[in-house]
Amino acid sequence: MSDTYVIVHGAWHTGAELEATAALMRKAGHTVHCPTLAGNRPGDNKTTTGLKDAVDSLVDYIVSKDLKQVRLVGHSYGGMVISMTYDRIPDRIQRLVYVNAFVPNPGECLNDLVPPHYLSLFDEIAAANANAVMLPFPIWREAFINDADLALAESSYAALNPHPYKTFTDKAELKMPMAAAQVGKSYINCQQDTAMPHGHPWHPRLSEKLGLFRLVECQGSHEIWFTDPATIADAIVKAGRD
Amino acid sequence: MSDTYVIVHGAWHTGAELEATAALMRKAGHTVHCPTLAGNRPGDNKTTTGLKDAVDSLVDYIVSKDLKQVRLVGHSYGGMVISMTYDRIPDRIQRLVYVNAFVPNPGECLNDLVPPHYLSLFDEIAAANANAVMLPFPIWREAFINDADLALAESSYAALNPHPYKTFTDKAELKMPMAAAQVGKSYINCQQDTAMPHGHPWHPRLSEKLGLFRLVECQGSHEIWFTDPATIADAIVKAGRD
Amino acid sequence: MSDTYVIVHGAWHTGAELEATAALMRKAGHTVHCPTLAGNRPGDNKTTTGLKDAVDSLVDYIVSKDLKQVRLVGHSYGGMVISMTYDRIPDRIQRLVYVNAFVPNPGECLNDLVPPHYLSLFDEIAAANANAVMLPFPIWREAFINDADLALAESSYAALNPHPYKTFTDKAELKMPMAAAQVGKSYINCQQDTAMPHGHPWHPRLSEKLGLFRLVECQGSHEIWFTDPATIADAIVKAGRD
Repeated sequence: MSDTYVIVHGAWHTGAELEATAALMRKAGHTVHCPTLAGNRPGDNKTTTGLKDAVDSLVDYIVSKDLKQVRLVGHSYGGMVISMTYDRIPDRIQRLVYVNAFVPNPGECLNDLVPPHYLSLFDEIAAANANAVMLPFPIWREAFINDADLALAESSYAALNPHPYKTFTDKAELKMPMAAAQVGKSYINCQQDTAMPHGHPWHPRLSEKLGLFRLVECQGSHEIWFTDPATIADAIVKAGRD
Repeated sequence: MSDTYVIVHGAWHTGAELEATAALMRKAGHTVHCPTLAGNRPGDNKTTTGLKDAVDSLVDYIVSKDLKQVRLVGHSYGGMVISMTYDRIPDRIQRLVYVNAFVPNPGECLNDLVPPHYLSLFDEIAAANANAVMLPFPIWREAFINDADLALAESSYAALNPHPYKTFTDKAELKMPMAAAQVGKSYINCQQDTAMPHGHPWHPRLSEKLGLFRLVECQGSHEIWFTDPATIADAIVKAGRD
Repeated sequence: MSDTYVIVHGAWHTGAELEATAALMRKAGHTVHCPTLAGNRPGDNKTTTGLKDAVDSLVDYIVSKDLKQVRLVGHSYGGMVISMTYDRIPDRIQRLVYVNAFVPNPGECLNDLVPPHYLSLFDEIAAANANAVMLPFPIWREAFINDADLALAESSYAALNPHPYKTFTDKAELKMPMAAAQVGKSYINCQQDTAMPHGHPWHPRLSEKLGLFRLVECQGSHEIWFTDPATIADAIVKAGRD
């Protein structure tokens, strides 16, 4: 079986950080793309790039390569982008796979889906950095990549790039709730992912917004791309297959 | 150690689907029975067979074979049947093991324990099929056997039989709540079992009705009998031993 | 990497029961101490020994051996003791690791953090035993060491000692909530730990009292020290490293 996957990174990341996972999926026979969204590419404007720009860049990628029957995978912030991309080009999408990712309803922005203490933290950082946000290292190390050793926590942190905050405050443009979307839907929950803290978990708080969906779980943190590419590659294939 | 197990299937199944699991338990030295309940055998009346008929058939099986110190395992709907069977022949039962199974209080029926959207779905299907219910394939594939590939999802679905809906609406006849029953009790929770959706989980919603019980968990879906017999066989032995 | 660990046992235990785990950590290059707290040593007074006595004994241990940069691990009741020990000698502590352990706020006692049915059970047992409590075997076997076979459940139970109940009713002396403590904090959740029953889970009910913390999870019961030392040793190192 050879399926076509497009994996969409989260905030602060680029597609490069997903390549270790993609390489394992390619060995299993799949075609895997890891594009970098507008806003996270070298030279992108961190002040003005918004959610629609990120979506446009993904739609352009899929259409320009004429990709079809795409299994479209989104991590974290990438869940906002794959939802809107499906809304734009549904005929090219075979299945949506959310990896501890945000699932918006029409008109919701990412910041509507995070706990209050992150909002005030992000607001403060963005205000001081021309509307670009970075994640403080202690949060990264303890709550995002809790399954890494310190060396990997540091080297992965060094690979991140400031994120255009406008993509967190722009509202999702969607014709209908994702629960009503007539497409295969899966949610991967990494069980030790504490990036969303107690009271605001990824699953089932966000997964249940998909309506009927397939749950796949694995052991790992929010940054399993760095700590265990083999496990997340396997989970994506189990989530993405028909 | 050689223990005697009777494993009771869920709705739509027969004992045959449990044989792969039973075979592994027999290799480990145990005696394992997988009877098929009244209502799910070839030729059974799907319109009139009720919960008491199913229980009668299990009681008859255990008594006619003179089984003693039985570790009585029930899956899903089978939890209704093992609870009432214990109520009828407690002296033959050493321990009750619920595998993501319903745990009734006296007077509750299975339909009292499922979420509203299943009720309306089942009502509609039963009304159109002389009181027999079948599960739509999309629900089976995404929410019941989420850890299978498509081929296994399809072949396992083909093995199912229409279920007599009366067994879902008949009330459990029990002298006391299962929490008060003086018998060993275990609950096995397959962690990726989404057959009961968010807000209505198997565990701890139903397990806590047992009072003091032993929890065993494993990775797997509601239909782990098809997808991972080795894991569920191991879990049953850990749950069923003294 | 060679780190210094002090692992603090729970109620009814001594340090001896942690030695199998400690031995595996030492093989990995770490220095590991498993002292026995005042109240659980042979000859200790079970009627009068209180929480401060237990803390004093741990502080004395660490100071007398001049241990520094300690990764201080507490299991269950041990969480009360490591919290107060950090409060007393913060400069010697590099990180606090709670293993399904109690996390007190200032002025809370252990009994404030357990479900009502344990309180009445403990009160009754203590009243009949000069203020010493023991855990009834059925609770130990089903809810504390659910992943053991019967032989191990019995041999481990035989190793327990009556616990001075005053340590459960004495209030924690802390200058600030643990969430405000400026020290690394980790919480290890053994996923099948049902010692705290439904509605009163270890995680996230108690872990969230730490503020920013690192979550590590593994498969196992509350008494994983007996049933799977390799898994808990690995989890402690992942939780305790910088």
